[in-house]
Amino acid sequence: MRFSVGCEIGYEVAQDTTLIFNIQAMRGGGQRVLSEELTITPGLVAEEKTSSESGNRYLRLTAPKGVVELRYSAEVQLDHIRHEPEAIREAPVAKLPLETLPFLNPSRYCPSDQLARFADRQFGALPPGFARVTEICNWIREEVDYLFGTSDTTTTAADTFSLRAGVCRDFAHLGITFCRALGIPARFVSCYAWQLEPQDFHAVFEAYLGDRWYLFDATRMAALDGMVRIGCGRDAADTAFATIYGQVMSAPIRVWSEAPGGSRIDAWTTDAVSLTTT
Amino acid sequence: MRFSVGCEIGYEVAQDTTLIFNIQAMRGGGQRVLSEELTITPGLVAEEKTSSESGNRYLRLTAPKGVVELRYSAEVQLDHIRHEPEAIREAPVAKLPLETLPFLNPSRYCPSDQLARFADRQFGALPPGFARVTEICNWIREEVDYLFGTSDTTTTAADTFSLRAGVCRDFAHLGITFCRALGIPARFVSCYAWQLEPQDFHAVFEAYLGDRWYLFDATRMAALDGMVRIGCGRDAADTAFATIYGQVMSAPIRVWSEAPGGSRIDAWTTDAVSLTTT
Amino acid sequence: MRFSVGCEIGYEVAQDTTLIFNIQAMRGGGQRVLSEELTITPGLVAEEKTSSESGNRYLRLTAPKGVVELRYSAEVQLDHIRHEPEAIREAPVAKLPLETLPFLNPSRYCPSDQLARFADRQFGALPPGFARVTEICNWIREEVDYLFGTSDTTTTAADTFSLRAGVCRDFAHLGITFCRALGIPARFVSCYAWQLEPQDFHAVFEAYLGDRWYLFDATRMAALDGMVRIGCGRDAADTAFATIYGQVMSAPIRVWSEAPGGSRIDAWTTDAVSLTTT
Amino acid sequence: MRFSVGCEIGYEVAQDTTLIFNIQAMRGGGQRVLSEELTITPGLVAEEKTSSESGNRYLRLTAPKGVVELRYSAEVQLDHIRHEPEAIREAPVAKLPLETLPFLNPSRYCPSDQLARFADRQFGALPPGFARVTEICNWIREEVDYLFGTSDTTTTAADTFSLRAGVCRDFAHLGITFCRALGIPARFVSCYAWQLEPQDFHAVFEAYLGDRWYLFDATRMAALDGMVRIGCGRDAADTAFATIYGQVMSAPIRVWSEAPGGSRIDAWTTDAVSLTTT
Repeated sequence: MRFSVGCEIGYEVAQDTTLIFNIQAMRGGGQRVLSEELTITPGLVAEEKTSSESGNRYLRLTAPKGVVELRYSAEVQLDHIRHEPEAIREAPVAKLPLETLPFLNPSRYCPSDQLARFADRQFGALPPGFARVTEICNWIREEVDYLFGTSDTTTTAADTFSLRAGVCRDFAHLGITFCRALGIPARFVSCYAWQLEPQDFHAVFEAYLGDRWYLFDATRMAALDGMVRIGCGRDAADTAFATIYGQVMSAPIRVWSEAPGGSRIDAWTTDAVSLTTT
Repeated sequence: MRFSVGCEIGYEVAQDTTLIFNIQAMRGGGQRVLSEELTITPGLVAEEKTSSESGNRYLRLTAPKGVVELRYSAEVQLDHIRHEPEAIREAPVAKLPLETLPFLNPSRYCPSDQLARFADRQFGALPPGFARVTEICNWIREEVDYLFGTSDTTTTAADTFSLRAGVCRDFAHLGITFCRALGIPARFVSCYAWQLEPQDFHAVFEAYLGDRWYLFDATRMAALDGMVRIGCGRDAADTAFATIYGQVMSAPIRVWSEAPGGSRIDAWTTDAVSLTTT
Repeated sequence: MRFSVGCEIGYEVAQDTTLIFNIQAMRGGGQRVLSEELTITPGLVAEEKTSSESGNRYLRLTAPKGVVELRYSAEVQLDHIRHEPEAIREAPVAKLPLETLPFLNPSRYCPSDQLARFADRQFGALPPGFARVTEICNWIREEVDYLFGTSDTTTTAADTFSLRAGVCRDFAHLGITFCRALGIPARFVSCYAWQLEPQDFHAVFEAYLGDRWYLFDATRMAALDGMVRIGCGRDAADTAFATIYGQVMSAPIRVWSEAPGGSRIDAWTTDAVSLTTT
Repeated sequence: MRFSVGCEIGYEVAQDTTLIFNIQAMRGGGQRVLSEELTITPGLVAEEKTSSESGNRYLRLTAPKGVVELRYSAEVQLDHIRHEPEAIREAPVAKLPLETLPFLNPSRYCPSDQLARFADRQFGALPPGFARVTEICNWIREEVDYLFGTSDTTTTAADTFSLRAGVCRDFAHLGITFCRALGIPARFVSCYAWQLEPQDFHAVFEAYLGDRWYLFDATRMAALDGMVRIGCGRDAADTAFATIYGQVMSAPIRVWSEAPGGSRIDAWTTDAVSLTTT
């Protein structure tokens, strides 16, 4: 499936400010960037780098006083691996690749140590495998209200668990937290999401099952195979679309994701869809 | 029913220290102190006062360097009001006595604001009344493990809600928190508890229903009509059995509660039992 | 000194809703309400009660669907007790009136247990007395930024201590917390504050020193003898100007405080000013 | 300088349990493992792997019911880079290597977002460079009590900041948190520490300054050039010496670090000592 995605971001900078962006579609696995275009106004030099560890692509630039605007657009081809959910097992900790182990650790927004007892009580007796993570997503969807204005950038999954309200990032954090508590590596994924309403950057998560990372979206707000991965990391702290070292005023962000030529939803959020093994 | 209760408490005091104790059986309502004895060694003068607001009885004394020991024993007659649970309604906020309103407010260990959404989701649709508070206790008993060493003096009901483990004080805090979130005044009660194993000070809670305060024990560890009330307040912060302004070493505490003459359990923890309207 | 104070509050009520207001000037001690007027539109019956414990005055009413508006205005005479700050001592815990002891306990927004070590390190060696509480206020004024939008209704003094930003209510909570940690009873006071800019309900605190409650304002935003006390309690949880049991939309609030006839500031915020012993 | 380090760890395993250890001395940069010996009793097969990202060395094994014991010992040569503290600058964010950026993000125990304002108020105006991080360590040493029993595995740097007490891991977390809040990459390092009293695993931190990672120990309990690095990561969540997936009983741990042949302290805790650029 092919998607046209992109965003426009603007700032009014008060004085020399370094900005780091993570808005470009990731490359690798089942995700190919066919073409892309990046425009920075005024014509500033942006350093482009890809993390060898996460695959996240970063743009770093230092903007002088004044207005700075980014426009990014890309054509992205997604070739998903799809498996029968029933056939996907959890890898025992004894068999997990070393690189996945950090994604078992608690992180800023995913204090899996604090919710371990609940996770075990609620999900511990379920048969290990893909269906267990689906059940986690079902539980979140059922028990947490999707509500703007109830959380902020300090909100952890333990807070969301108590508050029972949040937005996509909080839903992802809670899913990750439960997975880790159960011994399933899980990580945060920021993405462009086709048919998300209203259009914005979206947040989902990946759990490591069998021998690859499968996508999960506890919000159930968009199709899994319509998500173009931007950044992945331990939680939202690792995948900010913009990190700003200085004082700026933000202009409204515009984000889009389109599927040219009469696309249709192939994989809804309980299907097993994967883009990567690493 | 008649109970013999008491305790022995000892400290080694490093230098002049003021101690405030709240260990004496409360007087009033259905609880009568038939006789009691207090021994303080060495022969220190203790000031005895009863709070007009809470009815809590305080002993305040200043101990010099050395060992100080208290022994308190009392014969207490309990004459409970018992009602049919089904007949007990919640008073609407519009009708609540003014004195009960502070017990709707969040407090140190009972942040009812933080668990309001969950309380409403879980218990909000249940028919108001005694049975709803019983359901809250059932839920706590079912979903929280009674485990020593999982909580400490900083643990709030929101912590307990996440951790899913605690002791009697945590169970009471969680019950109070849910009640307040639903608009039911609720308060913390420290007590001597007959047949509690092992014997120790116990913590339960009271909810204001109809026109009086009913006892609830989410731990289900002792009979409701075997509880001799010591202190009541917003939460454990108000009912410490000893508050110490100085440096001391504590000796092991001994607490007892006996029912002379072949007593039997009359009211198990889902019955409606009340000792007071105030 | 005489003040004209008042407020206008309005709501659009979705369905039958009970509202409890605490907006009327308190009576007693050095504060006399010379005259007052309360208008409720439409002509609803409001129950008026005064707490024997706190002296807070409550209006309780149940509003039907539609718009409800309150207008309160009062002429208030304040006759302060003023003492030389140097002459005011702290009462040792052994001598504190029983009624002040609850104001040593940690509360929802004033977790004095959590900041006890810092309070002792920072203020413990200062000579006990009025000047020590002044020093607490100085420290807060110096170390915490007064900034709207940095705190909300869940923010505790421990949060404010870490964040180093807040508004009047947070400043008061932090002052109270430090006092309690040092063994000084302290309580939250909501008030009308003359010359506060912009006009709004204000929050300060009282510490019990010698044999009475002295006013302190760590924000230093208004004169101490221009404050007309509305509510007092353990923290902001006890003194909400409006508590609403139902769904409403709020209209903007208007608050005023005027000193007719060329008043002047008598007691700036480091003077010792008291209105009450209870 | 050469050190003999090692540890003995033992568990009684209740049933098949996977254990992951991170106790081996790291290799690379200025740290060379001259020889080492690992004994596992009974003779279990342990998988040994080194993280390409962090350099941490992991032992993973699955133990059956019964007793399992590890004994690790190593001879390690440390060849430090030493620089004049005055000459070491902070790298601006615009120049930081991409790999260091994750160490600017808040993590489970280092919520740098929550202490940003304080860090800026307290340390923001100091000249950037090595001396600023030394000043952070001085502040921690001065303002936080080193006390066992005041913190646990859930304690964050924000907690420690409020509590003003903790142990080495808490001191390291607080130092890391302040650095990140100021834009200085910082990470947690577990180590064997020569002359640490009593001997145990130790926790310090590294800050990225100039073009390398410098060691800092806010506890000031051991010489910087006597530390043999074991694990590094975002915080203690990444460097547990043992992670256990099952139920075990722990035997007492024994840890040692010796400097054969009359070593002497070369670098005390305000010197600039580095073992690695990555």
